[in-house]
Amino acid sequence: MTVTYSSKVANATFFGFHRLLLRWRGSIYKLLYREFIVFVGLYTALSVIYRFFLAESQKRYFEKLSLYCDKYAEQIPVTFVLGFYVTLVVNRWWNQFVNLPWPDRLMFLISSIVQGRDEHGRLLRRTLIRYVNLMSLLIFRSVSTAVYKRFPTTDHVVEAGFMTPDERKLFESLKSPHLKYWVPFIWFGNLASKARKEGRIRDSMDLQTIMNEMNKFRSRCSTLFGYDWVGIPLVYTQVVTLAVYTFFFACIIGRQFLDTQQGYGGHDLDIYIPVFTLLQFFFYAGWLKVVAEQLINPFGEDDDDFETNWCIDRNLQVSLLAVDEMHMNLPKMKKDIYWN
Amino acid sequence: MTVTYSSKVANATFFGFHRLLLRWRGSIYKLLYREFIVFVGLYTALSVIYRFFLAESQKRYFEKLSLYCDKYAEQIPVTFVLGFYVTLVVNRWWNQFVNLPWPDRLMFLISSIVQGRDEHGRLLRRTLIRYVNLMSLLIFRSVSTAVYKRFPTTDHVVEAGFMTPDERKLFESLKSPHLKYWVPFIWFGNLASKARKEGRIRDSMDLQTIMNEMNKFRSRCSTLFGYDWVGIPLVYTQVVTLAVYTFFFACIIGRQFLDTQQGYGGHDLDIYIPVFTLLQFFFYAGWLKVVAEQLINPFGEDDDDFETNWCIDRNLQVSLLAVDEMHMNLPKMKKDIYWN
Amino acid sequence: MTVTYSSKVANATFFGFHRLLLRWRGSIYKLLYREFIVFVGLYTALSVIYRFFLAESQKRYFEKLSLYCDKYAEQIPVTFVLGFYVTLVVNRWWNQFVNLPWPDRLMFLISSIVQGRDEHGRLLRRTLIRYVNLMSLLIFRSVSTAVYKRFPTTDHVVEAGFMTPDERKLFESLKSPHLKYWVPFIWFGNLASKARKEGRIRDSMDLQTIMNEMNKFRSRCSTLFGYDWVGIPLVYTQVVTLAVYTFFFACIIGRQFLDTQQGYGGHDLDIYIPVFTLLQFFFYAGWLKVVAEQLINPFGEDDDDFETNWCIDRNLQVSLLAVDEMHMNLPKMKKDIYWN
Amino acid sequence: MTVTYSSKVANATFFGFHRLLLRWRGSIYKLLYREFIVFVGLYTALSVIYRFFLAESQKRYFEKLSLYCDKYAEQIPVTFVLGFYVTLVVNRWWNQFVNLPWPDRLMFLISSIVQGRDEHGRLLRRTLIRYVNLMSLLIFRSVSTAVYKRFPTTDHVVEAGFMTPDERKLFESLKSPHLKYWVPFIWFGNLASKARKEGRIRDSMDLQTIMNEMNKFRSRCSTLFGYDWVGIPLVYTQVVTLAVYTFFFACIIGRQFLDTQQGYGGHDLDIYIPVFTLLQFFFYAGWLKVVAEQLINPFGEDDDDFETNWCIDRNLQVSLLAVDEMHMNLPKMKKDIYWN
Amino acid sequence: MTVTYSSKVANATFFGFHRLLLRWRGSIYKLLYREFIVFVGLYTALSVIYRFFLAESQKRYFEKLSLYCDKYAEQIPVTFVLGFYVTLVVNRWWNQFVNLPWPDRLMFLISSIVQGRDEHGRLLRRTLIRYVNLMSLLIFRSVSTAVYKRFPTTDHVVEAGFMTPDERKLFESLKSPHLKYWVPFIWFGNLASKARKEGRIRDSMDLQTIMNEMNKFRSRCSTLFGYDWVGIPLVYTQVVTLAVYTFFFACIIGRQFLDTQQGYGGHDLDIYIPVFTLLQFFFYAGWLKVVAEQLINPFGEDDDDFETNWCIDRNLQVSLLAVDEMHMNLPKMKKDIYWN
Repeated sequence: MTVTYSSKVANATFFGFHRLLLRWRGSIYKLLYREFIVFVGLYTALSVIYRFFLAESQKRYFEKLSLYCDKYAEQIPVTFVLGFYVTLVVNRWWNQFVNLPWPDRLMFLISSIVQGRDEHGRLLRRTLIRYVNLMSLLIFRSVSTAVYKRFPTTDHVVEAGFMTPDERKLFESLKSPHLKYWVPFIWFGNLASKARKEGRIRDSMDLQTIMNEMNKFRSRCSTLFGYDWVGIPLVYTQVVTLAVYTFFFACIIGRQFLDTQQGYGGHDLDIYIPVFTLLQFFFYAGWLKVVAEQLINPFGEDDDDFETNWCIDRNLQVSLLAVDEMHMNLPKMKKDIYWN
Repeated sequence: MTVTYSSKVANATFFGFHRLLLRWRGSIYKLLYREFIVFVGLYTALSVIYRFFLAESQKRYFEKLSLYCDKYAEQIPVTFVLGFYVTLVVNRWWNQFVNLPWPDRLMFLISSIVQGRDEHGRLLRRTLIRYVNLMSLLIFRSVSTAVYKRFPTTDHVVEAGFMTPDERKLFESLKSPHLKYWVPFIWFGNLASKARKEGRIRDSMDLQTIMNEMNKFRSRCSTLFGYDWVGIPLVYTQVVTLAVYTFFFACIIGRQFLDTQQGYGGHDLDIYIPVFTLLQFFFYAGWLKVVAEQLINPFGEDDDDFETNWCIDRNLQVSLLAVDEMHMNLPKMKKDIYWN
Repeated sequence: MTVTYSSKVANATFFGFHRLLLRWRGSIYKLLYREFIVFVGLYTALSVIYRFFLAESQKRYFEKLSLYCDKYAEQIPVTFVLGFYVTLVVNRWWNQFVNLPWPDRLMFLISSIVQGRDEHGRLLRRTLIRYVNLMSLLIFRSVSTAVYKRFPTTDHVVEAGFMTPDERKLFESLKSPHLKYWVPFIWFGNLASKARKEGRIRDSMDLQTIMNEMNKFRSRCSTLFGYDWVGIPLVYTQVVTLAVYTFFFACIIGRQFLDTQQGYGGHDLDIYIPVFTLLQFFFYAGWLKVVAEQLINPFGEDDDDFETNWCIDRNLQVSLLAVDEMHMNLPKMKKDIYWN
Repeated sequence: MTVTYSSKVANATFFGFHRLLLRWRGSIYKLLYREFIVFVGLYTALSVIYRFFLAESQKRYFEKLSLYCDKYAEQIPVTFVLGFYVTLVVNRWWNQFVNLPWPDRLMFLISSIVQGRDEHGRLLRRTLIRYVNLMSLLIFRSVSTAVYKRFPTTDHVVEAGFMTPDERKLFESLKSPHLKYWVPFIWFGNLASKARKEGRIRDSMDLQTIMNEMNKFRSRCSTLFGYDWVGIPLVYTQVVTLAVYTFFFACIIGRQFLDTQQGYGGHDLDIYIPVFTLLQFFFYAGWLKVVAEQLINPFGEDDDDFETNWCIDRNLQVSLLAVDEMHMNLPKMKKDIYWN
Repeated sequence: MTVTYSSKVANATFFGFHRLLLRWRGSIYKLLYREFIVFVGLYTALSVIYRFFLAESQKRYFEKLSLYCDKYAEQIPVTFVLGFYVTLVVNRWWNQFVNLPWPDRLMFLISSIVQGRDEHGRLLRRTLIRYVNLMSLLIFRSVSTAVYKRFPTTDHVVEAGFMTPDERKLFESLKSPHLKYWVPFIWFGNLASKARKEGRIRDSMDLQTIMNEMNKFRSRCSTLFGYDWVGIPLVYTQVVTLAVYTFFFACIIGRQFLDTQQGYGGHDLDIYIPVFTLLQFFFYAGWLKVVAEQLINPFGEDDDDFETNWCIDRNLQVSLLAVDEMHMNLPKMKKDIYWN
């Protein structure tokens, strides 16, 4: 579920963001505590070995190694590489959100344009909007693991009322080696065209408005599909991950507190806990982990993923209500309080 | 209220921006003076302790600690992290402004297209435009704390004249576990469709123009809602905040003026007031605080937030004027002064 | 007036850009020479004081201060902060240019669609296009100081022929506490709708094309207005200005040539004129001053501002020509030279 | 074939990205292992020469050279230059993906709008959609080496059923020195216009919807063509490549482990394998190689290129199915399970 | 002419980009060899003077100066400034390419919609499309030096067949102090409107489709004009140029090889040729020169400029072919090979 915190920061207050630092759900701590334990464990182990188990000459060698690692750790352009990568991932993530297919525009048109309060009219409107919902469901099954878990087979789709058994039969009779999420889309077009012939849709103007809207809906579906199909090139992700992992590997060795007696530059204090290195771990691992790892596929079941299953339910409920019960069910027009 | 200062900088003048540095309302000083006092207090306290209360050996230890903190403070990539984050936040903020729903395009069409200067015609135009305003009000209530405070219940909406009691009854009779801001949107469609049947809207062409415009209006509303619903991932914000706070924490220790007698590099001057550190505090805290903390939710009551309550009033007043009083109320056409 | 130099750089030539460095109008030199004199003055004054008026011990103290300032001057991330800020400002500036409202699309439609070469037809076309020009004039008066100076009152608008006295009377009779730039927009819609009834516009299709175009025109007007109304948050501008000013303040002290006898690192040469600091002044002050200070409001009277007054004249002249004299005034169709 | 890995990262898990580091197909290792061998070979050769074959004085000279190279290697802004370049390339690459021409929107309209289940109707619909597919094939032949290999001549296009022999004859009879991919586009328009006259397309509204959609399809085709025709300026690519190659050249000399006895700063450890330099090779060469070299033309046959041949087959199969077999072949409308 | 090299990099191969480094046409070498010679000349001259002509004390002074310059050369943020500037220029350059006006969409509509294979119909279609071509020619004359050279006067336009003598007379009789590239645009609208009255264009729907398309075409023309008219602010360009020139000036002095006997840090090796400085010259000068200097006006006659003259010829030839010879000249519809 998306973690909403905007109401917490509506007004800028005294050190207002510190409250955000203390949350658990969807937070950096929840996401990173396991990696953090591993990192601290490795660092501590090495520290203990260095302090208690190494012979003097080994200590000297280790100290040189540590200085060597520290020098190169600083040369790794983690910030820069992450900055560009994260910008790319955040843009993709937001575009996916923006392209979630909502049936609201279509239910508005169908409710207003498709005529008739009789049973045939109702059936027509409900069927049209159901095809819309069916199409988005088929796409969500392809891109979202959460939805796929809920609707693993076409049976589940039929049971949930998105498809009638007749439709399923026809759907499965169509021979194609490719994905068939576009089938309800074609049905929608033909059904609307038929409704036009029957006079339920008054003229070509009305028909085309619905058709264009449906085409836009399909484009959003296929955009989502495209984002799932063609991800950020694997090598880019590998380059970034490699940079961050290398950095942390270098830190485990290079950020050890060395014997203050040896007089190495910048090593005349031993406070045992490498506070700043741990905080750096939080920045960089947090940036990589959350912004990239979590956002790279926002259709999973992480705290910050989109609630696709909730969307599916909301869309069906709301759109059936709009095209059926609310069709030509208007409040009586009365003069408003500013009349003259 | 938005703080406008563009007229102040219309012409580039002699050191023209210094005037901007001396403003209070909406300024960095007003926003930060409390945090600044806290920061200065902590720095001073530590300075006093170091200078007067520590024993010599403690002083030496503190000096090492200070050098250690200073070294790492420089390594924290605050600028870079803030730069990317602020760019993201500013883009979202501007997009929210751009998507504020104004009824001007709809009032233009309704005023021109919906026929009849009789009472029914007036009622029709006023009701249509009222639904538009009602819809934007319902959305604003969801996203803006300022608007929510003004209209905490549906009663307040009815009282303010955005909804009639009949409409409210129907609105509340609709059963849905989900938000119902889209209800006036469906009413609008059905009412326009009815007006078309009655001949108040001449043909499908005219009807579809209005319907498409209304659909665009709804998209803006739902875009605003989307920005409120799905914020910048919490972890991103936490990473940035953590980086800035760590930096300031390191500065409080690391930027102390150390005993100039000890001969630490870069510590042979003691001017008591860390001028540049304080200025850095203003840059970084200002950047984080204002650009991010204030812009991240522009619908609060900060100095720089959008004046949503003013928008609501302006929109209702202006749109009723345009569709009612101004309908077919044209100045007499006369030859302009360039005629022949 | 915009300074155009693209034709100077059409072909890449031998050290081709050096010519651009030698221009005065709209140049960095013209824009900065006053600030430059102030900066050089302060630097020289301090230099003279240091060299001739300070006692030896004061010199030593000043040298320490200078080294201290120099160290921190380098830490101020001026480039980075300016880079992000300038990118934002340049984007806004270009968007404002792109959204300048030109009546060309509307004059094309009005000239082709609104029928009748008789006086009533001519009057209709001229009035419609005049409303378009009037609307853009009203907006320009709000956003541009140059236009506001030329048309300080509605009287000037009427005198210049954008409004007839009748229209002005009606305009002023409309009661609204808000800006009324949208009034000609509503008049346009109603007048077009009336022309449709009279048969001057043949059908709803033609009418809607004009209406949609007018709606686009209005959107551009309100976009301009939006950019003027909601600027870049004041604090962002303050942060950037503060960073640059701090940097220059630090430079005046920190970039002094110190006594080469004292053996400070990097201070064994005294060439009196801090060439590179002066050049840095040109980069940073130039970047801030021009790109930000000048572009932040492109509707003033700077060398690089948009020529709004010229636009207003061009638009009126050209659009009246197109809808009136050129209406159905076509060259005789003849076979072109490639016929068969 | 595109390498999809998003399902692998749907849920953020314990050190979740390490799995991505271990893949071969489409990975950084597969892409770089040859270059890596060359780089390691050169480094080793130089190392061996330095350690075993140089005289003492030559060693001293080499050491100075190595320190010199190392100093400048750090000054080369590889990260920065690559960051901007990669951002540009990734944007172009994604835009090309987004502009792949899919016939889905057209097949939806053709299936619904073009009337008649008789043979003439079927022929009409199939021919129209075939022109669409033919056009995209002609474009793909221009931009994709993979498609060009499969369809080297017009014969292959005819054989694959995209063109009939009659069409080919007419196609080749048209005299033009320029590319003729737009020919099926004009045929489509004229055929649709003819179908309108015959009443197969009911009215101008329906006709224009199809025509507009076809125009959008053509724009996508020509966008693809434009990306192929006008690449990133060669000099930009050369600058970036030169920077990266220079960096690696400097590394081969400058990152040698020097005699620890000589006491050069940062050279008191000899671990034979320059771990961090090798990892840097992977970052930078990986970034350049993959993100730029592979994405710069996504229509080749690399692991991460778009599967254009698969698209062509899918589009033909699916679109013929939609316009022919599925035309007015609707499931019987039944009440859904939420009816009342 | 645009330099296309994408087919060279379709498949990522062994050190694939090195081939790009060896090209001459459109390459960094061709573009920079003159500047390079100047730079090397200055460097060598200074080197010779330093080594052979200066007295010992002058040498010592020069060495200090050189170290001073070197120190500041490193502080000049060339990379950063260039990065932001180049991003801006490349975006503008690509937008100009994207907005090149192609008549393909219009020729598609005119060929399909404007009726009649008789001479009047042919004349009508040819004239309409000729106006389209004429308009783009007039714009190209304003923005492109190459086109202006080819068509210096209206006579040349008439001779090339874009305008008939009658049209020219009418064109020149229109009095306006402003550019008149929009005149054929108004003619187009009026001619299409007349064709509608004569029944050559069937109804308003068809007419509006053409009109809207023409309006889009005009927008592209005026976008090109806008890019030419309002360039990147001169001061931005000056800042960037100044930064790069300052850097090279500092390099010529600061990157000299100093006497290795004097023991200056980093100056214990004299290899006479400053390899890395020369390579840096190539990066930075290349970046500035090519990406900015060449792309800033892509309508000149550089290797990488758009081939506007070729476009003009192609557009006229192809569009006349499409609207005349191909009008209703369709291949006979036959069953495709997948029929049943």
